[in-house]
This record gives sequence, structure tokens and C-alpha cells, in this order.
Amino acid sequence: MRIGDRDFRSIWPGGDGESVRIIDQTKLPHALEIVSLSGLDDAAKAIADMWVRGAPLIGATAAYGMALALRQDPSDAGLGHAYERLHATRPTAINLRWALDRVRLAIGRLPPRERAQAAWHLAAEICDEDAATNRQIGENGLALIEAIARQKPAGEPVNVLTHCNAGWLATVDWGTATAPIYLAHDKGIAVHVYVDETRPRNQGAGLTAFELGNHGVPHTLVVDNAGGHLMQHGMVDLCIVGSDRTTAQGDVCNKIGTYLKALAARDNGVPFYAALPVSTVDWTVRDGVAEIPIEQRGGEEVSHVVGMSDRGVVERVRIAPERTPVANYAFDVTPARLVSGLITERGVCEASEAGLAALFPELARKRA
Amino acid sequence: MRIGDRDFRSIWPGGDGESVRIIDQTKLPHALEIVSLSGLDDAAKAIADMWVRGAPLIGATAAYGMALALRQDPSDAGLGHAYERLHATRPTAINLRWALDRVRLAIGRLPPRERAQAAWHLAAEICDEDAATNRQIGENGLALIEAIARQKPAGEPVNVLTHCNAGWLATVDWGTATAPIYLAHDKGIAVHVYVDETRPRNQGAGLTAFELGNHGVPHTLVVDNAGGHLMQHGMVDLCIVGSDRTTAQGDVCNKIGTYLKALAARDNGVPFYAALPVSTVDWTVRDGVAEIPIEQRGGEEVSHVVGMSDRGVVERVRIAPERTPVANYAFDVTPARLVSGLITERGVCEASEAGLAALFPELARKRA
Repeated sequence: MRIGDRDFRSIWPGGDGESVRIIDQTKLPHALEIVSLSGLDDAAKAIADMWVRGAPLIGATAAYGMALALRQDPSDAGLGHAYERLHATRPTAINLRWALDRVRLAIGRLPPRERAQAAWHLAAEICDEDAATNRQIGENGLALIEAIARQKPAGEPVNVLTHCNAGWLATVDWGTATAPIYLAHDKGIAVHVYVDETRPRNQGAGLTAFELGNHGVPHTLVVDNAGGHLMQHGMVDLCIVGSDRTTAQGDVCNKIGTYLKALAARDNGVPFYAALPVSTVDWTVRDGVAEIPIEQRGGEEVSHVVGMSDRGVVERVRIAPERTPVANYAFDVTPARLVSGLITERGVCEASEAGLAALFPELARKRA
Repeated sequence: MRIGDRDFRSIWPGGDGESVRIIDQTKLPHALEIVSLSGLDDAAKAIADMWVRGAPLIGATAAYGMALALRQDPSDAGLGHAYERLHATRPTAINLRWALDRVRLAIGRLPPRERAQAAWHLAAEICDEDAATNRQIGENGLALIEAIARQKPAGEPVNVLTHCNAGWLATVDWGTATAPIYLAHDKGIAVHVYVDETRPRNQGAGLTAFELGNHGVPHTLVVDNAGGHLMQHGMVDLCIVGSDRTTAQGDVCNKIGTYLKALAARDNGVPFYAALPVSTVDWTVRDGVAEIPIEQRGGEEVSHVVGMSDRGVVERVRIAPERTPVANYAFDVTPARLVSGLITERGVCEASEAGLAALFPELARKRA
């Protein structure tokens, strides 16, 4: 997607063929800092310190991290060390492990002198696949936006509400929830996006607003509290969110607050979709509310807010009394009954066991 | 209520009998600054600059402002000038006008030399009435908490979720939504409060957490996004919120985001109450969603956050890209169908025309 007059991915190979470039997302939206990763240490740090975030981008960075490590040490020991080192950066990230396993499996069979180059090509392939998957999610979601656009008076945009950042910065390109929006916009369909701030980490205010603004998509930032009011007053035509983990029955585990928007959508007859690659479906889980343990993060994310001060310095301010007890649940689960449909790379399906099985029979069968 | 080892109201007469003391609430929770108001200018500034906020406290401050003004100029012209000056500070605040009208009506009939003292007594009476009203709301709401406490295993607190600050700082004493909580706590019933941060102005994080902490009531600060998750997991027994304006059919117009919590409460079978003095009922409005215009405030409240920096200075930080378009709706309307009941100074009633009419027949009749 675009930043200013340049097309970007969230990760790309350096011109030297020996390093990888990323955007240090911890600096966004206040500075666009492009960082070059030239070895295993760099890649591990980029993931651990959240310069890159979002499951697909973490996986892509890990794959490139393996390639960079194998340039330094292509032995079996080097391969094993790189795997362990990268895996330890964010041990609960599903895509991280998936990417590392894929590289190890494909590369471990090769003689050491061929490994670095093969891993480099495989990392590029993983990135291209992610971009293609998201673009396909976009095409499938685009049909929903087009259908609404046809019913709106000429000149009125389709108003989409989204929560958190399921955008191109969280993936390699296009994003998941944002892919249909970018495709619609690029095709000349008038879209306008309400961007939830997404406390406590403000990924909506900091990342989604940054993405949309730089790509030229009309948008309005609102606090997380506002979505219900907007939907009551007919100001939202469609909600599209991402999914961190989707259960076999179609429950959507996503950033905390997603469930509240789904409730408001249901109460006001607004369609509510989750956009996701099938890789987020956890076929071993059915009832997301009962079965998915919700990660709790540090309380300072709630008691403090980070931003750019009027002095032009990135600072952290405390908004609560000192020593206020805080709870910080990172995700919530939106039950499938509140989800109008799942937008996947193979098409849009009902958020249900039958819906998912119809689109992905080979995966659903494997589980059963 | 208590701050440390001292009992406070949000406004009280100075020992000299010639000035009024308030807490500069713009400094909370980072500093407790008590300000002395000694004339009309001070009172007008305290209201206009939001050193005091919350409808009942604004009314009380305006009444004292009239008394202070009449010490300086008790003539009819002085009375009229003070009225206009104070009314212009927050022209849309219903309680401000109500208090000013009450003072003007009672005092205007008196000879000028008696006016200042009479106004002083009337202001004190308005404060005492507000405290008594809220205490009565508290007694009526306490019964709800007690009923839940009786059904909980011994030692487990009643978990109450509240939004924004409908606490003693917004009134003269007790608060509305907080009054039942304070009474329960003071009575030795174990209560624990989930405090919504309440973006964009963070009255939950800054004021409600401050109040509860200083009075010793166990509480946990959460982001506005978290309430749905908490209710899904049985962590909330009861929601109590305030009301800025209640319609004749029981719709509750309150701080933005209240509606989302009411939806989550309904979806999870959690009782959802609004606590309010009958003075917030607008008998001329029925359908709150359709009829109540929602105030939009400045976008900087959304794009920026104010707090205490790590350097120990109160600062403002920007969390979104510069020039991000922002919408900032201050209130939303929770339809009566989602409200389990209204806790008023006369008792708890159904959120409906019949419910309100049964408790307040003389007011409902006047309207019809």
C-alpha cells in the first residue's frame, strides 16, 4: 500500500540481497523509520521488541531471520540455533512457529552450502503468499462493499467501521480487514472508514489511521466508546474486523472490544464480518468464550498512554492515580451468532462449523 | 466522601463565611488543589474552566456564585448581572439554569440588604438537598447490592461495573451511580468496582478511580473495551451508571459508551441500572435516540491524551497522525429496553413511562 507517493510492503528484501528492510512500527505514527536487518540478532530483536507485529508479518520476519542466520552459519547446529532463538521471541505467536517449521523442514534437507539462498527464496515466497492471500480476502470482501455501494444514493460513501489494526502493517501487504477497503478505494468506490482508537495500545489511532491516511482513504478516528452511537444513527453500513484466532464453529477471538461492536451491529442491523486467512482457524477449539484463555498484559498499558508531546518528543503520560489496580485483557471472543460472515481467501462463508467446512472441507475433515 | 483521613464534599463554605472552597478538578488525579472562590469572577471561572463539573455541582457552584456576587452588589442590576454572567459559563447545563432561577426567584423579592445572606443560606440548602437526594438514591440502590451479596458465596465481593464519573465529585456528595457503592462499602458489604477508563476525557481513570481509591473502595481500572469480556466471564454482577438526561419513557442519555455496556449486560444477563435524581428526567422527550441531539466536542480530546509524564509534569500527547480527521460524540442514548431499572431518590422503578409515572405522578401528570 502507499505511504506518500511510494508503494510499500511491511517487509522487503534490501537491494544488496543480504539484508531485509522493515518499518519500525513502534515509532509509528510519529516517525517512519526504515530499519535494515542483516543478521539473526537483528531479526530476533525486531520481533521481540515489536518493531514488527501482526501474526503474518511476524511469520515473514522469522522466515527472513532464518535466511539471514543461515548466511552466518548454515550448519545443522546453526539452523537449530536460529530456530530456537527466533521461536523464543514471541513463543505464543502461531504464525511464528508455522513459518519457522516450514523453513526448517524445507531447508534442513539441503546441503549446508545451498541453505542460505534457498531460505531466502522461501522467505520471499512466504511473503508473496501472504500478500496474495490477503488480496484474495480483499476481492471476496470487495463484493460486500460493492453490494452496499449499489444501494446507496450516488455520492454517498460506504461507511465501514473497523477495530484495531488488521491492516497491511500487520501483514505483508493489503491487511485482512483493510484489504476489501483498499481494493474498493483503488477501484473508485467511495468508502469512508470509522477507525476505533483501540485502547489500550491504540493500534487504530496510531496504525490504521496512519495506513488509511497515507493511502488516501477517507477516514475518521473515534474513541472505542463511539461505535454504538454511530450505528444507532445509521452512520455505519458495515463492520469489518480481523481475527487473531477463529474457532471451528466460527467464534472470533480478536482485539479486546470487538465483541462490543458486534453487539451494537446486531442491535442495529449492521452487517458484521471478520476477515481472516484460514490459517487463523483453530480447528481444535469450538466454543471460544469457554475454551480460549485470554492473555493479560501489563497494567501500564492501561494506566499510561504513549504519544507525541507538544514539545515534539514521544512520551508516556499516566492518566490514573498512582498505584491504581488495573486489569488488561488483550482479546475478547465474539460468538459466531453475532458474526454475519467470515471473509476468507476462498470466499465468504457463514460463521459456523458448516460454513467453514463447506469452504475448507480438507481442513475440517482432518480435524474430525 | 473521604480523601485520605478527611471527609470532603465537592463544595463547601469557607470558615470566613465570605468565600467558598472547591477542588480544582482539572488537576485531578495528579494533584489535590483546593481553591477559594471569593467573588462572582471566581465562581464564573470555576464553572467555565471546568474546575467544577457534573450537573449538580455546577448548579451548587452557581448558587454560591450568586451569593458571592450579591455581597459585592445586592442591587437588582447586580442580581441580573450575576445571573447573566453565570448562565453564560455553560449555557446548555440544565442544573445551572435551574439553580440560578431558584436563587433569583427567592432573592429578588427581598430588600437588597438582606439578599447576600439569604442567598448564602439558599446555596447551602441547595447543597444539602443534593447530598440528601444522592444519599437517598444510595439507600435505594443499596438494596440491589445487598440482594446480590446475599446470593454470593461468603467472602466474594459484589462486582459492580460503572462508566464515567457519576461520583461525589460530580455532585455535592455521594454521587449518583456511586452512592449505593459507598453505602454498601461503609456498611461492610464487600464490593469491588470495575472502573471504565471513559475515553476521551478519562473521567473514569482520573476521577472515579481517584474517588474510590481515596475512600478505600476496592476497584480495578479497565479500558472501555473490556466490559464485554468481563461480563461474558461472570466477572460483573451489576452495572450502575449515571444519567445526564432521562426521557419520559426511560431512555438514558449518558456518557458515550454507556450503550455498549448496556448491550453487553443484556447479552450476558447482567442487571443494568441507571442512578439519577428525578431532576434529570426530561418529561418533554420520549424517544431519546431519535430526539436528543448529541453534542460533538473538539477533536483534540480524541487525538490527544492528557496525563502526568514520567518527568512529573502534566502534559498532552498526540496518539494519532497529525491532521487525522476526528469525530467526538460526547453522549449516547441507551434505550429503556436495555435498562433493568432506574434508581431514583424515591425508589427503584422500571425504565418506562409507567415506571416513572408511578414514582413521580405529580411530575408525569404535569407533562401530560
